[in-house]
Amino acid sequence: MERFTKQLEFITEIDSLKHVLRNTILLDSSRRENDVEHSWHMSLAAMVLLEYSNFNGLDINKVIKMALIHDLVELDAGDVFAYSSANREEIKEKEKKAADRIFGLLPFEQEKELRKLWDEFEEGLTAEAQFTQALDSFMPILHSYKTKGLQWQKHGITAEKVLERNKRIEKGSKYLWGYIQNIVKDAVEKGYLKER
Amino acid sequence: MERFTKQLEFITEIDSLKHVLRNTILLDSSRRENDVEHSWHMSLAAMVLLEYSNFNGLDINKVIKMALIHDLVELDAGDVFAYSSANREEIKEKEKKAADRIFGLLPFEQEKELRKLWDEFEEGLTAEAQFTQALDSFMPILHSYKTKGLQWQKHGITAEKVLERNKRIEKGSKYLWGYIQNIVKDAVEKGYLKER
Repeated sequence: MERFTKQLEFITEIDSLKHVLRNTILLDSSRRENDVEHSWHMSLAAMVLLEYSNFNGLDINKVIKMALIHDLVELDAGDVFAYSSANREEIKEKEKKAADRIFGLLPFEQEKELRKLWDEFEEGLTAEAQFTQALDSFMPILHSYKTKGLQWQKHGITAEKVLERNKRIEKGSKYLWGYIQNIVKDAVEKGYLKER
Repeated sequence: MERFTKQLEFITEIDSLKHVLRNTILLDSSRRENDVEHSWHMSLAAMVLLEYSNFNGLDINKVIKMALIHDLVELDAGDVFAYSSANREEIKEKEKKAADRIFGLLPFEQEKELRKLWDEFEEGLTAEAQFTQALDSFMPILHSYKTKGLQWQKHGITAEKVLERNKRIEKGSKYLWGYIQNIVKDAVEKGYLKER
């Protein structure tokens, strides 16, 4: 029973990720999105957009799992806006501590398995991690574009900044990066986004 | 480009599932859960509770995908409370039409792939479908128990009804069904739930 109790504790604990709000707003602009909604949406996007990854023979199942767990550390560390000037080293430290605690709720070998997956995502060295990171950056830009740049305007984000901060998309998918460059250009033309 | 446009249309369309509310409430009782949050939580529960399925060699990746897409039809058909007396045949018809429309947004072979997965879940004949269905019923009972039966009381649900309506859990996992029987008994003893 002790093993099952630990597993239930983990399942119960992660419910709070539904309360961690991001800066992204839903496509009807009604409210901010939470981390769980973002993770689900990313995993569906991964299933549908797989063919645009830069890599042959990508393990889609690993990508889906990574997308599902990549933000669990934000239970403790909170969400950090892509354009925030916060100290990235400090955030990384906080997130590592969060990973210790949250994955540590699980039985040992499950902790190791999920922690390994999260570490791989964070390090961004494998094909799967690079494609998952690309989607993690792709989705909020798509949301901002489709909601006429509301969040960009609110936070004074420029096209230059969007392209600079989201370059990692290219590492995972040149195709998606091409699309992002196009919609950023279009967003400037439509007045959703300032050029610089 | 037409293919990519279709895929983006699907990704955009499914954002609305974040607005489809269920009767389940979050574990801190603050608000109702939406379909996306439920789907994400189920997929994480699948990863962690896999060992309790009745089946050897279960394809966990298929279970995760099923969990992620199983409620997409509720974009059009809405969520139906597990204890509702609504006409199940009518609901099934509505959901089939919804599946035609929603999966139909995708390029043909992706439509076929996701539709096949959803049909398999609905039919509930394979090991993967039975375990996913078990989790689909398990999660709301866990939530109701952990929130001291608030939703059970609100809707006048009895222990008898909980056990009758959720029998399918046993098909997917005898272990989880045993746990559910225990917490339902405990919920009656604690006054969260009326016996009959």
